[in-house]
Amino acid sequence: MRPGGALVLGVDSGGSGFRVALAAVDGAPHGDGPPAGRSAAVAGPGVRVVGSRAFGTPVPTGPGGIDAEWLVERLVPVARELLDDAGAGERRPVAAAVGAAGMAGLGDRLRAVLPGALRDALGVRRLALASDAVTAHAGALGGAPGTVVAAGTGLVALGTDLVRWRRADGWGHLLGDCGSGAWIGRAGLEAALRAHDGRRGGSAALLARAEALFGPVTGLPGRLYPRPDRAAVLASFAPEVARCAADDPVAADVLACAARHIAEAAAAVHPAGGAGDVALTGGLFRIGDPLLVPLRDELERQLPEARPVSAAGDPLSGALTVAAALAADSPTLPPEPGLLDTYDD
Amino acid sequence: MRPGGALVLGVDSGGSGFRVALAAVDGAPHGDGPPAGRSAAVAGPGVRVVGSRAFGTPVPTGPGGIDAEWLVERLVPVARELLDDAGAGERRPVAAAVGAAGMAGLGDRLRAVLPGALRDALGVRRLALASDAVTAHAGALGGAPGTVVAAGTGLVALGTDLVRWRRADGWGHLLGDCGSGAWIGRAGLEAALRAHDGRRGGSAALLARAEALFGPVTGLPGRLYPRPDRAAVLASFAPEVARCAADDPVAADVLACAARHIAEAAAAVHPAGGAGDVALTGGLFRIGDPLLVPLRDELERQLPEARPVSAAGDPLSGALTVAAALAADSPTLPPEPGLLDTYDD
Repeated sequence: MRPGGALVLGVDSGGSGFRVALAAVDGAPHGDGPPAGRSAAVAGPGVRVVGSRAFGTPVPTGPGGIDAEWLVERLVPVARELLDDAGAGERRPVAAAVGAAGMAGLGDRLRAVLPGALRDALGVRRLALASDAVTAHAGALGGAPGTVVAAGTGLVALGTDLVRWRRADGWGHLLGDCGSGAWIGRAGLEAALRAHDGRRGGSAALLARAEALFGPVTGLPGRLYPRPDRAAVLASFAPEVARCAADDPVAADVLACAARHIAEAAAAVHPAGGAGDVALTGGLFRIGDPLLVPLRDELERQLPEARPVSAAGDPLSGALTVAAALAADSPTLPPEPGLLDTYDD
Repeated sequence: MRPGGALVLGVDSGGSGFRVALAAVDGAPHGDGPPAGRSAAVAGPGVRVVGSRAFGTPVPTGPGGIDAEWLVERLVPVARELLDDAGAGERRPVAAAVGAAGMAGLGDRLRAVLPGALRDALGVRRLALASDAVTAHAGALGGAPGTVVAAGTGLVALGTDLVRWRRADGWGHLLGDCGSGAWIGRAGLEAALRAHDGRRGGSAALLARAEALFGPVTGLPGRLYPRPDRAAVLASFAPEVARCAADDPVAADVLACAARHIAEAAAAVHPAGGAGDVALTGGLFRIGDPLLVPLRDELERQLPEARPVSAAGDPLSGALTVAAALAADSPTLPPEPGLLDTYDD
C-alpha cells in the first residue's frame, strides 16, 4: 500500500512519552515535484496518517535541556521502519515537525542537533521545532487563527491572528495554571480540610471523597509534600470535585471559579476583534459538564464573538499539520523563536 | 548571682534552629520545698530567665522523625552550662518543657527518649513535650484560654477553653496555610504573572516588584520549582505585596483576602462563647498595617466577642511558662496526645 502524495513526519513529545507518525499529504508537492494547487495548511482529509508509533518513555531532560541525541537515536530507526512499512521505497519525508513540552526553555539542544541529524539520516530538508502548545493549536484549529486552551494537570492558552502568538498562563501549579486539574484538585482539597477544621468554606462531601481517596486527612501533608509529582497528585482529585458539583455548592463554586480563570486565559490571547474559534483540548475537559457548562457561560461573557469548538485533532496530528504546511510551502502559523522555529535547507 | 525560686528549663525547636533557656520561678516550690501559694501558671514577672542559648542548626529529622538522640547530646551539656553559669550548685531543674515543630507527627522518638534522658542526666522529673503551636500559645497568652494565630511562611491557629484544644489550618502551602506568608507571596506572584500575560486580575506594580526581586518572570518557574524551600521563596514576596498595598488595589485585595482567611482560622478554634483573647504571633505580622488593619476588621466581624492582643511572649517563653506550671503543680493548658504530653516521674 504505497502512499500517494508527499510524505511528512510528525513527533509529539510530552511528559508521559513520545509519539511518531508518518503521513501522506494529498495535493502537496512530492519530494521533487511542483507544488499542487491545493494548500495543505489545513489538516483533515488532505493529511492521511500511514503509520504511527507510541513510546511510554518520555525524552529525558538533563542539565543541557531536552536530550536531543537520545531522541535522534530512537526517532531515526522508527522513521525508517514507518517508511518501510508504508512501502515508501526510496522516497523520503519532505518535511517534519516536532512538538515538545518545554521547547522554549529546554529546547536549545533540539534546535542545535535535529535539523542536521534529520537531514543526514532521513533526508528531511524542511523542519519545524514547535512548543507542544503550538502543535496542540495546529491540531485543534488546523492552522487557522484562534485560540487553544490546553489543560490537564497544568493549563496554557495560546492564541494567534497568524501574525503573532500570544500565550497566557502555563506558569505551573504554584504560580498559575489557574483552572487546571491541579488548581481544581488543590481547591477541592482545601475545601475538604476547611470542613475538617470547621473553617468557613468547607465541604463535608469533598472531605468524604478526600478520605476515601487518600485516607485520613491528617496524613495527607505527609503523603503529598515528599512526592516529586505533587501537581499530578493534586490533579487526581479534580474528577472528585466534578462528581460532587451537582449536589455540593462548594465544589460547584470551585468549578465556576476555574471556568472563570480558563476564560480569562483564553480572552488574554484571543485575536483582537474576537475573530477565530476557541478550542479546548487536553484531559481536563473529560471531567465534562460540571466544568464545561460554566466554562461555556464564561466564554460567552468574556469572548462573545468567539466560537467555542471541539479540537479537530490532537498535538500529533498538529505536528503533521505543521509539517504538511511546510511541505506545501504554505505555512500559516507564524514562526517565533522558541515557540515555532522552522528550518529550510 | 544565684537564682531564687525553682529552676525550670525551656526548649524551642523549629525549622531554623533551637533555643534553650533556664528560668527561675518565683513563688514556685523549690526542688525539695513545699508548694508556694502563688500559681506560676501565668508567665510574666513570676518567671525570670537566668540564661539562654540559641543554635542556628535545626534538630535533624530522619525516617524515624525528629532525632531525639541528637537533641539530647546537645541539650544536656548546654543545660549544665546554663546551670553552672547561674551558680545553681547542686540544684537541678524541677521541670522542663520542649516545644518542637512537627511534634505530633514526628515526635515519637522525642516521647520515647527525652523523659528518661533528661531525668537521668539533669534530674528533671516533670517534663512537657509540646507542639510548637502549644508553646506559641503559652508564650502569647500565658496559659489563659483563647486563641493564638502563629504565622510566618505557614499559618496555624490553635485555641483552647482549657478543657480541650482546637486547631485549624497548618496544612502547608499546597493544601492550606491560607493567609500565610507563602499564601500572600504566591497570590502576589500570580497577580504579577497575570499582568505579564494580560489576564484579568493582574498588577503592574507587583510585576515590577517581582522582576526587581527575581529577574525576568519568564525565568521564575525555572528558579522556583527545583528548590526544596519553595514555600519560603513564595513567602519572601509577601513584604512586597504589603509595600504595594497602599497604591495597588490588587495587592490590597490579596491582603484583605489573607485577613479573611486568618480570621476564619481563628474563628474555627476560638472557645465557644467567644471568651478569651486572640493573639497574633510570628514573623508574618511584621509586614504591619497593610495586613493588620484589614485583619482587625475581620476579627471584629467574625469574632466580635474576642479581644485581639499582642503576644505577651514568644514560644521559648511559652516553653518556660509550661515548665513553670508543671513545677508549681498547676498546669492550666490541657494535655492532649501529640499536642501536649506531660511526664511526671
